[in-house]
Amino acid sequence: MKTATICTIGDEILIGQIVDTNSSHIARTLQSLGIRVLYHLSIADDRDEILGRLSEALDRSDIVIATGGLGPTRDDITKDCLRILSGSEGFRDSEEQYRINCEILAARGIGMMATNRAQSQVPDRCEVLPNHLGTAPGMVFRGLGRNGSSVLYSLPGVPFEALGLLGSVMGDIRAHFDLDSITHRTIVTFGIPESVLAERIRDWEDALPQGVHLAYLPNATVGVRLRLTEMGGGANIDRLAEELKALLGDAVYGEGDDDLPTAIGRLLLARGKTMSAAESCTGGRISALMTAIPGCSAYYYGSVTSYDNSVKVNVLGVREQTLREHGAVSEECIREMAEGVLRRLGTDYSVATSGIAGPSGGTSEKPVGMAWIAAARRNGDGSVTVNTRRVQFRSNRATNIERFASNALNLLRLTILEG
Amino acid sequence: MKTATICTIGDEILIGQIVDTNSSHIARTLQSLGIRVLYHLSIADDRDEILGRLSEALDRSDIVIATGGLGPTRDDITKDCLRILSGSEGFRDSEEQYRINCEILAARGIGMMATNRAQSQVPDRCEVLPNHLGTAPGMVFRGLGRNGSSVLYSLPGVPFEALGLLGSVMGDIRAHFDLDSITHRTIVTFGIPESVLAERIRDWEDALPQGVHLAYLPNATVGVRLRLTEMGGGANIDRLAEELKALLGDAVYGEGDDDLPTAIGRLLLARGKTMSAAESCTGGRISALMTAIPGCSAYYYGSVTSYDNSVKVNVLGVREQTLREHGAVSEECIREMAEGVLRRLGTDYSVATSGIAGPSGGTSEKPVGMAWIAAARRNGDGSVTVNTRRVQFRSNRATNIERFASNALNLLRLTILEG
Repeated sequence: MKTATICTIGDEILIGQIVDTNSSHIARTLQSLGIRVLYHLSIADDRDEILGRLSEALDRSDIVIATGGLGPTRDDITKDCLRILSGSEGFRDSEEQYRINCEILAARGIGMMATNRAQSQVPDRCEVLPNHLGTAPGMVFRGLGRNGSSVLYSLPGVPFEALGLLGSVMGDIRAHFDLDSITHRTIVTFGIPESVLAERIRDWEDALPQGVHLAYLPNATVGVRLRLTEMGGGANIDRLAEELKALLGDAVYGEGDDDLPTAIGRLLLARGKTMSAAESCTGGRISALMTAIPGCSAYYYGSVTSYDNSVKVNVLGVREQTLREHGAVSEECIREMAEGVLRRLGTDYSVATSGIAGPSGGTSEKPVGMAWIAAARRNGDGSVTVNTRRVQFRSNRATNIERFASNALNLLRLTILEG
Repeated sequence: MKTATICTIGDEILIGQIVDTNSSHIARTLQSLGIRVLYHLSIADDRDEILGRLSEALDRSDIVIATGGLGPTRDDITKDCLRILSGSEGFRDSEEQYRINCEILAARGIGMMATNRAQSQVPDRCEVLPNHLGTAPGMVFRGLGRNGSSVLYSLPGVPFEALGLLGSVMGDIRAHFDLDSITHRTIVTFGIPESVLAERIRDWEDALPQGVHLAYLPNATVGVRLRLTEMGGGANIDRLAEELKALLGDAVYGEGDDDLPTAIGRLLLARGKTMSAAESCTGGRISALMTAIPGCSAYYYGSVTSYDNSVKVNVLGVREQTLREHGAVSEECIREMAEGVLRRLGTDYSVATSGIAGPSGGTSEKPVGMAWIAAARRNGDGSVTVNTRRVQFRSNRATNIERFASNALNLLRLTILEG
């Protein structure tokens, strides 16, 4: 099995000014190719560190992917270290990257300055992976490491650009490495806690054939992903994936990178239906999740974040009496919110939330982390069916909001399925 | 200067299933104490890796903070490695953590099982930092490394819990290490691009005294943070921070961890005013940003995400004629959206966005990444003043949305200041 190390170069990650998202994306992609990631490393813009750590990584792994340390406002430390590591004598100009850079700068209305000119220069012993999203090219250095067979990929640090180059990197890896045959099927579920899931499929899991592995990957936004992996030709994996889906029924909503917004979008598109949202405690999070999907305007009409009770009354049509008698965090209120936004925005479905995200605002009767969620469906005769649920979580504000939102979206998903 | 290494233990980060946010938080905190972070490492749940990498880190740095590898569904590999590294003979029970764990499990309605019982067991040569948010205690191991003076902190991997223990860790570091005196002041700005900022303060920056360092920390959501750091007694830093603020005027909106929602909240609270939002292309992101701040219900009434044009007309009161003649992405439409939501939700201020986040939907006249943003103010005489701006970005959907949202919030901030 081929091995890899992922390395970021740059002080901003080291001092915690930004979160490293590149390594996570790169690792997932390598994992899907059946490459074993040995470790991740984040190091400083320092000559000795870069030379020492990259050398060590190249000795230990077949593939090293390094991001960062490049770019017009940087010192040239990283590029010079790459020159040394690759045994290059000096630098050459990448004509392709230079042409791209002229276009990029022209589009930004900036002239080509000396600092930009240097961007397209690369160590002479490297292959360029042209970067169409920024001025620093991706670079490939072969024949490195103790065995003279390891490969180093150097990518810009800006996530947009690094991810844009990942396709080229993976293509290069496939072309140059003899990869193990490995097949993945990821089944995505929501609604059954991880421990209960494990219990439900215990016998099936115990009977998995040799070479097949199951991983549980829980996530507050997505639910629980179940990832099946088979080494070799993948003779069993499709059958096993179908067995797993049958065991878990409606809890299964997708595969691979699917999430609840994607699944709901698919269901609505297939039925030619539309949806809206009325949010209180989730404050816009449900709407932001739904609108992250390109093309959602075909089925997502919009939302009302009724944070103040006056907005619940004036815009959603919640009755003042309901608020007086039951309060905003109540089943009565959530019903009126769900039906109100469905009618006001003229959609076929709606979802609604009202609760207490915290850290303050809870009572013994309605504690922090508690919410009412609802999903509504417009029926053929014009009536509206509203499904409601009370949920209780015990985390910080952000995580409570995330769980309110994902549970509400799952309730909507099930409501669409029953329609 | 004391040094530190940050290490995560656990396959989920290695295979890219989750993004490592703990290391970033820990690094920022260490940085604020004047401790130099040498590198970050993410390793597998593997005995040789854990022993080897933690030993190496303890030889190279004064402080090692390791997160993960603990918890009820884990093998006990990590805890046993900690036993070996610390020279412990065996394990002992932490009575304090045991008591906490009984309460935690009771609150979840779960009985104490054997797997949970083992959670409060720790290597005998360690000090416990009680974890009140989860069942795995924090642990401190002293007298390690080549010099016999390094300290290893082991924390649970769940971010909520690791961050909850950070205060205790920092208190322990302050109590046991002789730290350099270091003072930070971070000035937070929005509206001036980094390169223009640098040009504007060039002379002032060139004249900074010895021992004072300025770092530029740009961020799509927050703007550009300018962090001043002074070693020693911090004799100059307050004066320098005031000089910097004077040089940058209205672009400065806060200090430290302030962001635009925090600053806007402060301005509104001080004036006893309220706000609302009408979002199209930002899809709920502005609302989610505003409602992330605890206590925002005092000034944030809510929003309308008018993703479909019918919602712009029916809920916000945008005129059909406006949409026909100018389209949704126009100055005319954004004015009506901003005024519409301000009047409909009955607030003193509002913010609005309408644009094309991408990747599709652009034209040569209205390309992807373009948006109209607006901020409105209700005047004493009942009239409404609307400030509008056209913005153009060139990134992916998520980043365009982020920039639309932060620029709109900054326009709102400036509109409140001029009021």
